[in-house]
Amino acid sequence: MTADWLEQIKWNERGLVPAIAQEVGSGKVLMVAWMNREALSLTATSGKAVYWSRSRNRLWRKGEESGNEQIVQELRTDCDNDVILIQVEQIGGIACHTGRHNCFFRRLEDGGFRDIEPQLKDPDTIYGG
Amino acid sequence: MTADWLEQIKWNERGLVPAIAQEVGSGKVLMVAWMNREALSLTATSGKAVYWSRSRNRLWRKGEESGNEQIVQELRTDCDNDVILIQVEQIGGIACHTGRHNCFFRRLEDGGFRDIEPQLKDPDTIYGG
Repeated sequence: MTADWLEQIKWNERGLVPAIAQEVGSGKVLMVAWMNREALSLTATSGKAVYWSRSRNRLWRKGEESGNEQIVQELRTDCDNDVILIQVEQIGGIACHTGRHNCFFRRLEDGGFRDIEPQLKDPDTIYGG
Repeated sequence: MTADWLEQIKWNERGLVPAIAQEVGSGKVLMVAWMNREALSLTATSGKAVYWSRSRNRLWRKGEESGNEQIVQELRTDCDNDVILIQVEQIGGIACHTGRHNCFFRRLEDGGFRDIEPQLKDPDTIYGG
């Protein structure tokens, strides 16, 4: 937990950093979530994405309920050390809690956001209703 | 400035939202910066990326000094409406102020971050020294 590289990250005032998960192969941006120091450390050591859930105020092992884990192939930070970018293999092909492949399914068109990606699975069946 | 779609965005306590710029074609994540309401509105209407500079506390028309503008081809938000993802054509091939193609040039390897992307241009020559 005191690894030098963790000290290099510029944690925000809440001790968090945003993390982008990008899918290996497709290059699609799947989702953005937050990591605290422990989540980032666990992500690096376990090879699976672990985030910090701000709504539940606890570690969130991606896929812990849905089974849709993210296998981490690469971990980067940016020039300011204040954003994390991970390359992941998305187990189950579904990253979004709405049952879609990724969270960025709302495109600006004609002055409004339109949902343009198919729902692959009913969220109720993902999370056991 | 009062467009409905701008009202759908969940602005943070500072009135900002993180915006990811992804390169059309390569799919590479170029950078992450912040937008306020005006920056996002201008991005949509001008077709060029406009951010909010937290360090300079003013609008930042990407490329205003370097010439390395970002032409926006698509604008999306995510399931929570709290992150923006734009697909851009990166003019000049350099998104990062360090003179690299993109900002995510620091990869975690052997317990430390290593700079693994070439510097394409000396920052002094980008910004006039």
